Formats: sequence, C-alpha cells, structure tokens
Amino acid sequence: MIKVGIVGGTGYTGVELLRLLAAHADVDVVAITSRAECGRRVDDLFPNLRGHYELAFSEPDVQLLAACDVVFFATPHNVAMNLVPELLAAGTRVIDLSADYRLRDADLWSRWYGESHASPELLAEAVYGLPEVNRQQIASARLVACPGCYPTSVQLGFMPLLARSLVDPKQLIASSASGVSGAGRQAKIDNLLSEASDSFKAYGVSGHRHLPEIEQGLSDIARQAVEVTFVPHLLPIVRGIHSTLFARLTDSNVDVQALYEDWYADEPFVDVLPPGVFPQTRTVKGANRCQISIAVPQQRNTVVVMATIDNLVKGASGQAVQNMNIMLGLDETAGLQQIGLLP
Amino acid sequence: MIKVGIVGGTGYTGVELLRLLAAHADVDVVAITSRAECGRRVDDLFPNLRGHYELAFSEPDVQLLAACDVVFFATPHNVAMNLVPELLAAGTRVIDLSADYRLRDADLWSRWYGESHASPELLAEAVYGLPEVNRQQIASARLVACPGCYPTSVQLGFMPLLARSLVDPKQLIASSASGVSGAGRQAKIDNLLSEASDSFKAYGVSGHRHLPEIEQGLSDIARQAVEVTFVPHLLPIVRGIHSTLFARLTDSNVDVQALYEDWYADEPFVDVLPPGVFPQTRTVKGANRCQISIAVPQQRNTVVVMATIDNLVKGASGQAVQNMNIMLGLDETAGLQQIGLLP
Amino acid sequence: MIKVGIVGGTGYTGVELLRLLAAHADVDVVAITSRAECGRRVDDLFPNLRGHYELAFSEPDVQLLAACDVVFFATPHNVAMNLVPELLAAGTRVIDLSADYRLRDADLWSRWYGESHASPELLAEAVYGLPEVNRQQIASARLVACPGCYPTSVQLGFMPLLARSLVDPKQLIASSASGVSGAGRQAKIDNLLSEASDSFKAYGVSGHRHLPEIEQGLSDIARQAVEVTFVPHLLPIVRGIHSTLFARLTDSNVDVQALYEDWYADEPFVDVLPPGVFPQTRTVKGANRCQISIAVPQQRNTVVVMATIDNLVKGASGQAVQNMNIMLGLDETAGLQQIGLLP
Amino acid sequence: MIKVGIVGGTGYTGVELLRLLAAHADVDVVAITSRAECGRRVDDLFPNLRGHYELAFSEPDVQLLAACDVVFFATPHNVAMNLVPELLAAGTRVIDLSADYRLRDADLWSRWYGESHASPELLAEAVYGLPEVNRQQIASARLVACPGCYPTSVQLGFMPLLARSLVDPKQLIASSASGVSGAGRQAKIDNLLSEASDSFKAYGVSGHRHLPEIEQGLSDIARQAVEVTFVPHLLPIVRGIHSTLFARLTDSNVDVQALYEDWYADEPFVDVLPPGVFPQTRTVKGANRCQISIAVPQQRNTVVVMATIDNLVKGASGQAVQNMNIMLGLDETAGLQQIGLLP
Repeated sequence: MIKVGIVGGTGYTGVELLRLLAAHADVDVVAITSRAECGRRVDDLFPNLRGHYELAFSEPDVQLLAACDVVFFATPHNVAMNLVPELLAAGTRVIDLSADYRLRDADLWSRWYGESHASPELLAEAVYGLPEVNRQQIASARLVACPGCYPTSVQLGFMPLLARSLVDPKQLIASSASGVSGAGRQAKIDNLLSEASDSFKAYGVSGHRHLPEIEQGLSDIARQAVEVTFVPHLLPIVRGIHSTLFARLTDSNVDVQALYEDWYADEPFVDVLPPGVFPQTRTVKGANRCQISIAVPQQRNTVVVMATIDNLVKGASGQAVQNMNIMLGLDETAGLQQIGLLP
Repeated sequence: MIKVGIVGGTGYTGVELLRLLAAHADVDVVAITSRAECGRRVDDLFPNLRGHYELAFSEPDVQLLAACDVVFFATPHNVAMNLVPELLAAGTRVIDLSADYRLRDADLWSRWYGESHASPELLAEAVYGLPEVNRQQIASARLVACPGCYPTSVQLGFMPLLARSLVDPKQLIASSASGVSGAGRQAKIDNLLSEASDSFKAYGVSGHRHLPEIEQGLSDIARQAVEVTFVPHLLPIVRGIHSTLFARLTDSNVDVQALYEDWYADEPFVDVLPPGVFPQTRTVKGANRCQISIAVPQQRNTVVVMATIDNLVKGASGQAVQNMNIMLGLDETAGLQQIGLLP
Repeated sequence: MIKVGIVGGTGYTGVELLRLLAAHADVDVVAITSRAECGRRVDDLFPNLRGHYELAFSEPDVQLLAACDVVFFATPHNVAMNLVPELLAAGTRVIDLSADYRLRDADLWSRWYGESHASPELLAEAVYGLPEVNRQQIASARLVACPGCYPTSVQLGFMPLLARSLVDPKQLIASSASGVSGAGRQAKIDNLLSEASDSFKAYGVSGHRHLPEIEQGLSDIARQAVEVTFVPHLLPIVRGIHSTLFARLTDSNVDVQALYEDWYADEPFVDVLPPGVFPQTRTVKGANRCQISIAVPQQRNTVVVMATIDNLVKGASGQAVQNMNIMLGLDETAGLQQIGLLP
Repeated sequence: MIKVGIVGGTGYTGVELLRLLAAHADVDVVAITSRAECGRRVDDLFPNLRGHYELAFSEPDVQLLAACDVVFFATPHNVAMNLVPELLAAGTRVIDLSADYRLRDADLWSRWYGESHASPELLAEAVYGLPEVNRQQIASARLVACPGCYPTSVQLGFMPLLARSLVDPKQLIASSASGVSGAGRQAKIDNLLSEASDSFKAYGVSGHRHLPEIEQGLSDIARQAVEVTFVPHLLPIVRGIHSTLFARLTDSNVDVQALYEDWYADEPFVDVLPPGVFPQTRTVKGANRCQISIAVPQQRNTVVVMATIDNLVKGASGQAVQNMNIMLGLDETAGLQQIGLLP
C-alpha cells in the first residue's frame, strides 16, 4: 500500500482528497496534519467521513510526513514552499495543490503574492500538473504543482485552438464563474450564505492571481506569448466552475468540433460534448471530469468554448490524485471513477 | 420630521431599518453609528441604498443620539443595556432590537446570556414589543424590547389557542426554521454558503436563547406557566422563518379556523390564510407580515399551526418600525406597506 | 386616477406589475385578464398581494380593456400583436412587455419567432421603450415595446462606448447570465429546482431571440451596423441579470469611468458605481435600477463593462411602469422608489 | 454477472440507480425502459453518465425484462402493479421503488391512491423493504416494496423507542422536510426553481400518502396501533430529507443515546451521532446512510429525534440496491460505499 500524507486537512480540498482516496484501492492515508485541529478526529470535523476513516489530525511534523511515499499539500499558498525542500531531501514525492510552485518566474510570483518565494530554486524543477499537457514530465517528477481551478478549465478549453494556432493569441477572453467553495473554508463575510447566495457578481477584474498562471500555461501551449482578459465571477453554488471562452478565429474554415473531439479522444477525464449540447456544472459535480462544448455563433469569426469542472475535483483534489497515479505508475483513473451527482 | 438614530448600523437589521425608513414619510435618519465603519458612507457598505441616503457611519456618541427623538439599537446583546439608561435620562425613547430587555427576570437573563445584566432596574419598565399583545403599553413606553424572530412567529402562532385555553400548555412543540440572515452579518464558518447552502439541520436543540423568551411570552398569554419543546433549524435561504407548531387540543369541537380569523381580524400585519392554504416564507419576503394557517390533521386531537414571517422585517426591523409608529402616535402601518417580493 | 388594464396577469411580469403599481399613487388597476384563471382572485394565486388588491382575473375582453387609459401586455409573444390594433383604434395606449413590437423589420421578426407578424403595419410606429435612449419618443407614443431583459442590460452597458465610437463595433461580446424567472412561470422540466439549482450553464449559444434586438438597438446607438457575440447563461437564482461585456478600445486614452459617470449623470435608474466596485445582482433585487461598472484590465485594450438589473423590474415590469410615467407626463420615478432587498 | 433491468429510467430514481449500479462489481444493467425516450441513449438524457453506460432506453417489453435476474421499478405508482405478476411468473425477482406494494391493505391503498389495486393478491407476499426491520424476509422475497423516502427516515428514527415501548404510541409527531427531487422529474409549476427556491413551506398537512405507510410500519414495530401527526415540508434544495420527530417518554429514566447506539450498532447504513451533534442533510448527500441524533431538551419528557437521509439514496435507489444485495446473497454494502459529497 502506498503511504499518503496530507498537510492541511481542514479545508475543502483536504476533505475532498479524503473522499477520493477512500475509494482508491492502492492507497493508505497515514497522516493528516492541522495545527488548529490537532488531536481531533477527521470524521468529527467532517461527518460524511464517519465509518471511512479512523484518522485524527496531527501536528505538521516533517519526520512523520517524510515517512510517506507521497505528501499532498492542501494548504493556502505560503505553506508548501517552506516545507517541501526538506521533504524532497528525504525522498518523499510532493503534490502541491497550492499556488506556491505554479509560476516558473519567482519575481512574477512575488508580484502577485506580495512576498518573496521561500524556495525559488525548486521552481524550475516543479512540474505543472496538468496531465493533458505534461503527462510525461509528471510521471518522473518529484514535485508537482497542481493547477488552479480556473486555470484548469481555461487551459483545457483553449488548448486545441492555441496549439494549432487557429486563433489570435492576443485577444483571448475568459469569462469564468466559480462556486463559493473555491474561496476555501475560511470565515469571511463576503462568503456567508447571506451575502453570496441568490446573487452573482464579477470580482478581481483588475487582476486575479490565476491570470499569470493562465497566461504562462497558454503561452506554453501556443509557443508564443498570449494575452488574456480574465473576468472571474462568483456563483451562488458550492461546487463548479464554468468558463466561457471567446477567441478570434484566424482560419474560419476549421471544423472546431472535430478538432476538439480528436484532440481529446484519448483523454480519460476530458469529455467533448456533441454539437449543440452545452455543459452544466451539475453534470460534473463530484466527478474528475472536464466537459467541453464549442460553438461559432452565427458563423462569424468569434469562437466560443464552454468548459466545466468541479473546482474541488478536476480543479483540485481529483487532479491531484490523477497526478499521483501518473507519478506512481498506477492506472491514471484509479480512485477517480465517481460519477457526477445528478440531480 | 421625527429625528431617528440607529446604533449598530452595519448588520442586517441595520440596513433593513434604513430600507424601511426610507419609505417612511415622517422620519429622518440623522445618525447611524458604527465604531468599525466610522466615516464610511452607508451606501458604500450597502450599495442597494445608493441614491437614498447621504449618511455616513459615526462613532457611537451619546450626546448625538440623545438629540434624536427615537433611537433604535440594531446591535448584538450587551450593547443596549449599557447605553440605554443615559438615553432615557436625556428624554430619548428607545427601541431595542437586541435581547437585552426581553426577559423580565435578570437572573434568567444572566443564565442564558452568561453575564450579569448592566441595567436590571429597567427590566420592569421595558415593554415587550409585540404589538398584537401589548399595543397599549407600547404606546406610552419609553423603552421597547423588540421580540426575537423565532418568538414572534411562535407567539403569534400559539396565541389564540392559549389565550382561550384550548390546548394543553405543558405539551407545546415548536419546530421552527430560519434563514441564515438570522445569524447576523458575522464571519463564521458555519454560515458560509459552502457550509449552510444545499443543506438543512437542527441546532440549539438542548436550549436556544429564544426558549425562555417564548415561554415567558406564552405564559403571559396563557395566564399560566407553559412548557415548550423548541427545535430551531437552519434553512439554506437568506430571509424567512417558518414555525410549525403542535399542541394537544383539550376541546376537540372548537372551530380553529374561525377562532384565528376572528382573533386577528383587525390586525394589520397578521394574515390568517384560508383553510387548506399553507404559508410560504417567500410570500412574506420583505414584508412586515405574519401569515398563519391552522389544521387538525385526520381530525385527531393534535392541532398544527404554521406561521411565517420575514425574520428581518416582522421578526426584527419592521416590527421595530411598527413599535415606533405606535409609540409616536403615527399610523401603525406608515412605512410598512411593502409587498412581499414574489417570485 | 389613471385606469390601468393588464393582459396576462398570471406570469411573473404580471404579478410584478401589480406589486409596483400598488405603490403608485396615481394609478388604479381596474382589469387583469387570464383565460385560465378567470374568476380567481389575484391574491389567491399570489398570496403576497393579500390585502393589497380585491381584483379577480377576468376574460380578455377588448371592450373592457379599451375603457382603460393604458393597457400592459404581460404575455408571451404572439398575443399583443393580435389585440393591439383594436385597442389603439379605441384610443387606449399600449405598453407591450412581450417581443411583438421590438423589432422594426417584420421579416427579421418572422425568422426568429417562426411565424408571420399579425400587425406589421404597427412596427414602424411602435417606440422601443428604453427611456435612456428614446425618452422623447416614448412621451408621445401610443404603442411602446418594452425591451427584453438581456437587451436592457447589454444596451445600457455598451451605450456610452458605442455612441462615442470608442470601440470596434464588429467585435462586441456579451456574456450574460439570468435568473430562472426570466423563463417565465411555465411548467418546464429544465426550469425545475432539481434541474436548474446548484448549477450553471450556457444556452442558446447558436442564436437567442434577444440577439437581433440587441444588434438593432446597438446599431441605432452606434449609427452603424454592429456585430455581437451573445452568450446567455442560466443562474440558479430567481431574479437578476448580470451582463459582462467585452469590447476592443479604439482609443486607449479615454477615461471610461468619467465617460460613464457623465453619460448617466441625470438618469434616475442607471447607477454608475465607483472605480473598483463591481455590481451584484442582489443589490438591485426588487429595484428599478441598472448598476454599472467599467474596467480596463491590465491597461490593455479590452474594456470590460458589468451591468446588473433585476430582470423583472428594470428588465420588464419596472421599465414598463417607467415608460407609462413618461407617456402620461407623470414623475418618471413614481411608484419606482423601491430599494433593493439586501440581504 | 447479475442481469438487471430497470423500468422507467427517465426519472431521478432511475438515473440514481444507474449511478450506484455502475460502481457495483457484480451487476450488469442490460435493459432500461422508457416509452417516451425509446431509442435515446441514457447518457444523452443524463450527461453525468457519459463514459459509464452504452445503454439506450427501450420499450417496456415483458420478455426482455423477464430475461433479467432482477427488475427494478423506478416508476410512479400504478405501473408496477400491472407488470409485476407476469415478471414473477417468469421467475424474475422484483424490487419496486414505487408505492404499489407498500400497504398490505388493498382498500387502504385504494383510499389513498384513488383507484383500485391491479394485483391485490400480491400484497400479502410483498416484503416491505426496510432492511433494518425485515432483513430476513427480504433475503427470500420474490417481490420487495421499497419504503418511501419520508417513511424510511421516520421509521428508522422512531424504531428503538417504539420497539422498546418507551413512548406514547398515540402522540407521535413527525415534522419532516424534503428536497425537491422527492417530487420527481416532472414538469410542475410548483417545483420550478422560481417557485420553490429561496422559500420553505408545509404541504399535504391534511393527509400525505406516506402517512398510512408510516403508521403501518410503526404499528408493526410497536406491536400496537400508533397515531402519527405527519407534516411534510418542501426544502429549497435538491436532495435530502430531515425528519424532526417528537414523542412523549413514558419512562424518563431511559438513556436514549445508549439505546440508539446499541440498537443500530451492527447496521451498516444507520449512523447514530455522538451526543450534541445534529445531523445535516449535506453529510449524507449521495450516500446510502441515515444519520440520527437524539435529545431530551430541558430534561423534560419530550424526546426529540433527528434523522437525515438522501431521499434518492437511502430513501430510494440506494435502499433498493441494498435490498437487491440481500435478496441475492451479496455483501449488503456492495456498490453502496459512496461517501457523502461535502461540501
């Protein structure tokens, strides 16, 4: 059995890792850390786990974690970058769900996160964990930086068009919407049900931290610098991201439906919907899946791509498990066969 | 124009007072206090008020407040009881939306609120502001204690049966449910959209602070001590309370529908629905109204009463304005004619 | 008192007209028609109206309606266009909330609505009822076609930029989202709570009926033909439209914030928010108001406009009452001072 | 592999059976019928199933179904009772999720369902499929009638108290609340998001069809006739039932917490929560589980039991699979290990 540790298990990506790993036959979660909840059983904090785990939260202890085969960081940014060097040195492989190793440029990271990076020497080694782009590098990586939730949906949505140079890379628009769980399990007035439910709003319009990650990833795919106008919105739901993407076609004769179907034909977790069927966040709720539709309204030269994921699964914990499977040479779909909860 | 002050205007009952008073022709809100938001415009915090108020939050200053004709306390408990004595001494009338003056017994208050009362000498004078019970005393009161949201619905629901001694006063059951705004505008994990939406739960089953208030009020109405089993629940909505009340009929021949229709015939804000029509929280959303239905299922001897209010209106700020109208000799419905927002 | 008739009062725009007109001092609703509910009291169907109306639904009778000063059509398309000629002939003024008279081109109308127009001779006379564009023509109109909900938000959002020729009119993008009440009070599986709640999706991507209306209106404003990529989405809420608009600036030196503030300075129902504050649908819920923000992310040349309305108020019944006020020479804000219900 | 057929697969219990059975290693769904959707792929109607089923809906054909080892009826009432006799005659075992075989008394059934029963001769043979009561009979049954969703929660909640004769059987109260999916996937105005969301109401107060089923089941458990006041409510959520149960203790010295923990100690799908922890519908969402809490507020003699289930899982399709496992001698938990989706 593979021994797994989780740092920061009191947030939503932590409990989601536990839900997914309980269905994974090859894995044993041996440690889950939390300073604040040290000593408390995980199923006391998350009663959905009763009967599935006997585990209690423990202090974050490097030796304990170093004894694991893989350690997940399900923490806010600024935690992993301080602990990872020691874990790697001990031979433990690390899958970081936070933002600490997503950007290759330490200065860029500092500009967006407002502090200097604690282990910039690892940025070059860290592999960006979007399997549909970097599957091979992930397989041999010691340190994988899981993509953010918005960036996952935006990159999967734009990838075929940019890789084939079919759209203007300087005029990309991503109008995305996320459920509130994306903001984490933190006490903030803005995310109270009384504030966020029964409403819809844009936020972070002048600059969201996922923008540099999106532009880095799409530039890699396009093999040239791209520019994205990214407007995130807050949905009055718990789970789900829906990205509506717009681009200017440079070749109006391309069959975009066929392009996407071919591109993703062998991907286990990307599902291109039939023409005229549009994705809903509810059909991927709880599932490690990205559903995508493409349209060219009025046959003009603006292509519209719609991509949905569950921000806690394909946008975080599910993708993290997918990366673990690849790193460990397991079946990539192990533990990830859950069907979306509909209705 | 009547000069009105509001202490604690950054919560939901504060912004709701502002919404209602903007429609009140006889009233001018001259001061609204908040230590935390001092200097900030109210319409900056609450953009729905843009164009309706020029006011900014100010420090809570007794002299400023004492210059008002009426002061509302839209604060958590433990604020009013410290300031009210001085305001009364200055001749200002006070309407307290908090729990500070609801219980007549200072010891009982201390037991439920975990501290001693700062102005127990006022408890005897304070009038419990349920107009349907105490209209006359409210008219001449200097200090009115507005009922809690749950207690408003439970008392209006049980009143006719208890006043007429038609049910066993020792076997009263109130299964109530409230929207999350009842928990106030405070950063608590439990009230995040990600925690409270798409779910339903009971809470405070072993003892909620509204229980002694309910039992005091119903005992007054019944002219004997009552016992209530009170189970509050959290609804995944913003506004609305629905109380489902159960009691054992001691007289099975009574026409409960006629009883309720007669009892509330002249009440402007209590609406007894026709037989077989059950109230919904949405039909009273935004309105100062309690809608009530009565049924005796299977013609057995358990009577069921359903009572709905908007917890922020008839359960708080609307009832406070109603009390103000009575205290000042205005039309009781002034500023309170808003129709429920349906759908 | 102005005598008002409403055709088709059983839908959401019907009950919303009743809510708003109850607060209008100059108006008396004397008739409301519905074949299906003929004889039933309106407050039996809509219990929020109890105590505010004694009215019952009646058969749609032209003579009865012709006796009114103004008749509102709160019907699906294909009703007004059959009845309006007779009403106009009788001297009654008509405000149509449906799509029947929104497009000036009868052929275009037929193409999008799948049938021929019953009174195409009136299309030239009908005034498109967006007061911020056509206030003067509305004042003297016999027949006003109220804009659709999406078109209201998109036109108000793009207007200053297009009127001043500051953006490329061929590259307009509108990513809009609407609450479910926009789909009307009709039994459809897609709009069940179990289908539409807790989810988000795009729909009508290949062509929504509001697209030709949007392009007609924006072309008028721009004084040249525009092209819009319009993607509507379904929000899991009852009320509210949020349009996120994207355009390519042709002049990157313009101060868009100042432009919008100046443009709408005298508009009673368009509210340009301060820089960095983004609109939420909840702050305009129940209010006849459009709140707008503008941003130019990363100082690149894509401008983003966010515009919110309540689809049933500024997007339908409120705008209809605003049009009535203009047509009858009343204060344009009469009956429309309701403050948004927040929280 | 066990060959399974499903009659009526277009509703919510149908798609939920498919979700659960996809995770069941011993089962192959070979037929799913629907007249209306005949020929359409199931994953076209339910896109969450894409990649998990190649199946298409077929005409309900008795021969096809008779070739199955087990047939589930996921239909409204009045379908199974016409087809079951033929299937049983062919040697197929039947699990009926509808109400057709829940009541033993054909006259009682007729009174509540408004028609005569088509196969009353089977009522005595049909086993009521609540495994916690009838596990042994289920194991050898040819025909199992799965309990209704409300009755499951109410019976599991009251069982220990009634079986041990600790409460007055004539004064039972069940104040239950259900998500809207309980009403099925049918186009009804009352269940539109615009009607049912953001609201809460009681319904069926004068008599809900689950009442006779509840009273039959509880009378069996109590070994005497019981009387229940049952008030169902509609929650503005998709999935989940929460029953708040009240009873008069006849023995005030009993340790109800210990009683429940002992009673359900060996039940794989009933989870008694620790003292002071109350169940939430969200912690059982998607899981085949009933979570229960017990309290005696103020140490008076009214006991309160709270029981939550997912109405589509333990309240319908999950319980049906549990029954299938028992009937076929499989591990009772096979295919039913899904963890509740939290948040």
